Formats: sequence, structure tokens, C-alpha cells
Amino acid sequence: MATITFLSDYGYADDFVGVCHGVIAGIAPDARVIDVTHRIARHDIRSGALVLARALPHMPAGIHLAVVDPGVGGPRRAVAIRCVERDRVLVGPDNGLLSLAAERFGGALAAIDIGDSPHRLEHVSATFHGRDVFAPVAAALAAGAPFDGAGEPLAADRLVTLELPKARREDGRVVAHALLIDGYGNVTLDAPPSTLADAGLAFEPDLLVNDVPAVYGRTFGDVPPGALLVYEDSYGAVSLAVNAGSAARELGLRLDDEVRLEQA
Amino acid sequence: MATITFLSDYGYADDFVGVCHGVIAGIAPDARVIDVTHRIARHDIRSGALVLARALPHMPAGIHLAVVDPGVGGPRRAVAIRCVERDRVLVGPDNGLLSLAAERFGGALAAIDIGDSPHRLEHVSATFHGRDVFAPVAAALAAGAPFDGAGEPLAADRLVTLELPKARREDGRVVAHALLIDGYGNVTLDAPPSTLADAGLAFEPDLLVNDVPAVYGRTFGDVPPGALLVYEDSYGAVSLAVNAGSAARELGLRLDDEVRLEQA
Amino acid sequence: MATITFLSDYGYADDFVGVCHGVIAGIAPDARVIDVTHRIARHDIRSGALVLARALPHMPAGIHLAVVDPGVGGPRRAVAIRCVERDRVLVGPDNGLLSLAAERFGGALAAIDIGDSPHRLEHVSATFHGRDVFAPVAAALAAGAPFDGAGEPLAADRLVTLELPKARREDGRVVAHALLIDGYGNVTLDAPPSTLADAGLAFEPDLLVNDVPAVYGRTFGDVPPGALLVYEDSYGAVSLAVNAGSAARELGLRLDDEVRLEQA
Repeated sequence: MATITFLSDYGYADDFVGVCHGVIAGIAPDARVIDVTHRIARHDIRSGALVLARALPHMPAGIHLAVVDPGVGGPRRAVAIRCVERDRVLVGPDNGLLSLAAERFGGALAAIDIGDSPHRLEHVSATFHGRDVFAPVAAALAAGAPFDGAGEPLAADRLVTLELPKARREDGRVVAHALLIDGYGNVTLDAPPSTLADAGLAFEPDLLVNDVPAVYGRTFGDVPPGALLVYEDSYGAVSLAVNAGSAARELGLRLDDEVRLEQA
Repeated sequence: MATITFLSDYGYADDFVGVCHGVIAGIAPDARVIDVTHRIARHDIRSGALVLARALPHMPAGIHLAVVDPGVGGPRRAVAIRCVERDRVLVGPDNGLLSLAAERFGGALAAIDIGDSPHRLEHVSATFHGRDVFAPVAAALAAGAPFDGAGEPLAADRLVTLELPKARREDGRVVAHALLIDGYGNVTLDAPPSTLADAGLAFEPDLLVNDVPAVYGRTFGDVPPGALLVYEDSYGAVSLAVNAGSAARELGLRLDDEVRLEQA
Repeated sequence: MATITFLSDYGYADDFVGVCHGVIAGIAPDARVIDVTHRIARHDIRSGALVLARALPHMPAGIHLAVVDPGVGGPRRAVAIRCVERDRVLVGPDNGLLSLAAERFGGALAAIDIGDSPHRLEHVSATFHGRDVFAPVAAALAAGAPFDGAGEPLAADRLVTLELPKARREDGRVVAHALLIDGYGNVTLDAPPSTLADAGLAFEPDLLVNDVPAVYGRTFGDVPPGALLVYEDSYGAVSLAVNAGSAARELGLRLDDEVRLEQA
């Protein structure tokens, strides 16, 4: 049984996710579809890319469909990418959304432009390529259609990539950035654990994070309710959390904001 | 494998949707269930009917379960409808929710009252007919139970229908109404594209929509972020959108509000 | 086909639920997974336990996975419980979340500590045991792994239980408490229907609920829109509702607040 995973910013209020499931079921009735999430913030390509890259390694190999597509109906390409880990195929808009997942699976081995794929629906709208292009191509691939025949060849080095912020050392500090904020208000930083270790901050009980006292611990309960925690999250990234609260709200953080970590 | 699609206003906060899935799995273990959406606004029968009618043609044929049921436990009928497209069977309350989908599939070929269906759960509550009546009857039909035996015959012309608002021409204007508002704030109007074309407004770059400047384009990116777009949406209806924003909020629109479209 | 049901407080904004589905699909590709709900209020163990206990009897027997886990990574145990109804196996944190469902299925016949289960993922994080411990153990059990080999034996009487509030009679009144509040603002009380019947309040048309006039009826439509209804809900519990409104908001109720019911 082939697996299709599906991530988008369509939300759950409308029929968009359901309709894509319907289209897939019509084309690949035996495929299993696993929803990664559909509540990526609207048009937030980078958050979609980050969530996709961290979630997919936990998913069975197969076809990985992703749609965060502010440029739908415009000149941006629609693509499918076969990764160096060959059993991983990514399908979505070529706006950087797929780039981090592709990297995670060894890079792009081959790519095709699926904008005019023979597997598209007969009528392609200007605003719902999830239904008309991406889902049907993903389903056709899951049902066994050859990769090469699903679109026009595209040089992998022409695929759009993402520019990510980069944490830096500065005197005794680490100056990182809010890379991703989850539904609990936990904030993933762009500094890997090694950067904090190199700066002598790993597992220090007396930190300041943007001047707010914090503890470098392992899990939420390592600090009292309401207190700030720096920890390596379950995906291996340095993150901020408030036990039973929201670090994003507590620190007033939005995506890309600077986060200074230092000894108290 | 039979398919059951499922739409409701139950939301995701509670176990109601999950419990209906559980009941279905117990009765029709081999059926595939596709959720259309469960976030129809509470008790909003018309929005449920509109979403159902536009989504179902993209779904595999089968049993189409829908529950938006403010009159649960009262005198409203519970029904199953076999459409003229015979492989489409609708199951839900007889309050208009199913009427537009039935029309879309050629009209009602046959109907039954399932209020006392032999397929109901043994104990029927007064407030959760999704679980006790609609889901079990839908599951029994998906598992192969004969349509006629699932309830009492009901003349199709006794089924409840919906009154929809109607756009009109008025001098050089089209006066339409907000028929449906999606989770992005896009607003579907009751004027078909042909009405705008007849009024000479199709693809005009200088429109006024309730006195706000707008462009008749194809997709969101045809206008700058924050600007108002009139377009034919992916289901073929004339709609309003704000690129990267909310047309409903921008124009202060609620369901049924008048929307005047004219040359600037 | 084995069934795994899944309830949590992970919400839908992130990839947490999806990742658990992915892990399960990798280990038990033939299992069916039914989501009960993932919007239990964050860390609200008791609401999770109550929803689980009322929903699971409507689900096919199998493995019942549940994760509301404020103590993740701390000393709380991770457990699997075989119920006296032997085809019901509960998997989750040992913080009371599973206790009411276990009771509902006749009590715990056997329990194991799965904190070091051989079925855990290779790398176990400190903050996402849903992915690393609970889902893989649930999946292994669904795929046929023996219960006894999935963890260390644990005396059932050491399992954590929940303290629930208790309604009482007081003169002519019933003094109950808000036990659970659903997404519509309906409020489940801790008084069973028999307590209201014994106090002579059953089906009385003139009640006061915290001094607000109410009717004891069967379904929402038994009172006008905006009016307060006392009723036996679809799970057999006495509840409060406002027709087309929110009883919790109308009465200003939060969990555990007292609710006084008496003749007007």
C-alpha cells in the first residue's frame, strides 16, 4: 500500500483538504493518506518547509504532498522531486516549501515540472492547484505512474531554495532567531545545540534569554509553571518553552525576532 | 471498497466526529471515510448545503453523510436520498442541507424516512442523531444494506428545499449577495460569471464593489497584497478575495449582505 | 484489521498528531487509526479522561491510545492497561487519564510499565513521548506483539486514579459541579439523572440554575433560542445547554464551579 502524506495551509474550516482527499481517493483508491497538518500559517512557506522537513523522516516513505502556495495561478512552477533517498518523492509548488525536506533526504536526484502534467485534472482552476494539479499528480505517482512521465524534466539546480536566518556568537552570547513557533507557543531557534555548548551555555541553570531568567533543562517540568525553559526539543533543535505557558507570548516573539542567550 | 463522505458542524473540539467514525467502523469496517469538513458554522444549514454541493462532485461516488441539525430530536425528518445519478446516496436531516447536492446529482430519484430505520443504534438519544441515526444508517448502506429497507418510503417532492438569495441587474450594476464565506474571508456571490459578463463587467480592471476599487482577475496575485479581487473561483462561482487578506473583513460583509458591482 | 483509537491535547496546529500517525503506519501498516479528538484543553487530564470514557464504548475494541501528558519526561509512569473487557487495551501516561475508561471497561485486569518498552523508538526524547513511546507501543500491540512482553509488570492497584467532584442534595436543591464543557458551551454536571429525579426536579418546566430560569427538557428545541435547558445528554449525563447559544458563557461557568438546581 502506497503512502501519501499531505501538509498544507488550507486549514480545517473549509472543504479544501477534504476535496483533495476525495480527488486522491478517486485516482489512487488503495493509497493511505496521512495528514501532517493543515494549519501551517497562511502563506508561511518557511514554516511549512521547516515542519515538513522535521516531520517527514517519521513518516513511511512514499509520496509527500505539500501545498503552501501564495503564488497559485501565477508564474511559480509546480514540481515533483525525487530525492537521493529514492523512495521519497516530494510534490508541491516550487517556492522553497519542499527544499528543506529535499535536503533532509539527501537532496534532489531528479525534478520535473508538473504544471502541464498529463495527470492534472481536466479543468485546472487558477486558484486551487492543490485539487487540480498537486493532489492528482501525487495520487497518480502513488498509484504507480512513472516519475519521468508525470512532467517535463527540470534541472534540480533550478529549484527554488530558502534563505534561513543564521544564529551567531557575539562575545559571550549566542544571538539566535525565532525560526518556528508551534501551537503551544514553543519557539524553535536557529542555533543548534552545539552552538550553545560551544558558548558554554548548555545545561546552565542561570541563563538570560532576552534578559528574562531561564534554565537550560531537559523537559517542561524542569522549571516551575510559568518559568522559561531552554531545551533541545524532540526534533533536536534548541527551543524555548514556558512550562504550562507560551514562550512566544511571554517574550513577545514573532518569527525572525532576535533571541539573545547568555549567562545570567 | 465503499466510500462514505462526512460533513458536519460538529467541530473538532469534541469527540462527536470521532464517535461517528467509531460507529461507522463498527458497522462497515471496510468502508473508507473521507471527512469533507466539520467546521461548517454551527447550525448554518445553507453554508453546509453549499459546501456539500460543490465538494461532493470531487468525491468518489458512494454514501454522502451530512449533519447540520439544529432541529435534532424535534419533528424534522431524518432521510436518505438516492439521486438520479444513482451511485450517489445522501444521508442526513431533511432541513435543506442535502437539497443542493441532490440537485447537483440530477435530483432525488427516491427518498426514505430513516427516523425509525432498522439500522439505527438500539438506544437513540434526543440530541446526537449523528451517532445514533445518520452514521449507522450511512454505514449500513455502505456495507450493502438495501436502500429500500433502510427506512419508510417518502415522496421526493416532500423533501425540504432551500430558498437562496438571487442576484439582479439594476441599471449598469449587478446587485449580488454574500452567499458563502470561507476560512480565508473569500466571499462567494450568488451571481454566476455569465451575469457579470452580460453586464459588461467581466475582466474589467476598474470595478467598484460596494464602492471599493477592485479588479476582475484570474488569481490572487493579479492584484497587489491588500487589494480587492473579483474572480471566478475554483468551483466556478464569482467570488471576492483580498490578496493575502480577507475580503469579508475588508468589506464588512456577512452572509446575505448586498454586494454591488459596477464600473468605476 | 486492528483498530487504534487516538485522543490527545496536541491540537491540530502542529505536526504532532500527524507524526504519531506516521509512526503508527510504519509499525502497524494494516491498523486502522480513528482520531477521537486532539483538542482536549492543554494539560486537562480530567477532561481527557471523561471524554475518553464516554467515547470509547462507541469505538471498535482494540488499542486505545491517549496522550494528555503535562509530566512528560518526568517521573510519571508510561503504561498499558488490559481491561477486564479483555479486548480493550489502553496506552498512555499514568496520570489518571486512562482511569475512567479502564473503569468503564470493568477495571484493570493487568498493567505494564512501558517506559522502557522494547517497542519504543530507538531515540526517546524528553518531551514527545506520544511519538517515541506511546504511539510505537500502541502500534506494536495492534500489530500483534504480546501484551506481557511490551513492558514491565505493574500492580493494577498502583495505577493513578482521579478525584472527581461530587454532587450533593441540600434541602430541596441539588448542588452539582461543572464537570466537562464542550465546544458548544454545553456543560456536563456530576449529578446523574437519578439524583435530579430523587430531588423531584426531573422534567420540571420551572427550574432555577444558579438563579437563572431553566426548563428540564429532552432536546435543544424544547426551549426558545437563547433559553436555558437542563437535559440528559446523549451519553446519559445531566447537562446544561442554551438553545443556539452557550450555557457556559451564559452562566459564567468554568470547570468545577458549583451549579445549584432547584424549583423556581
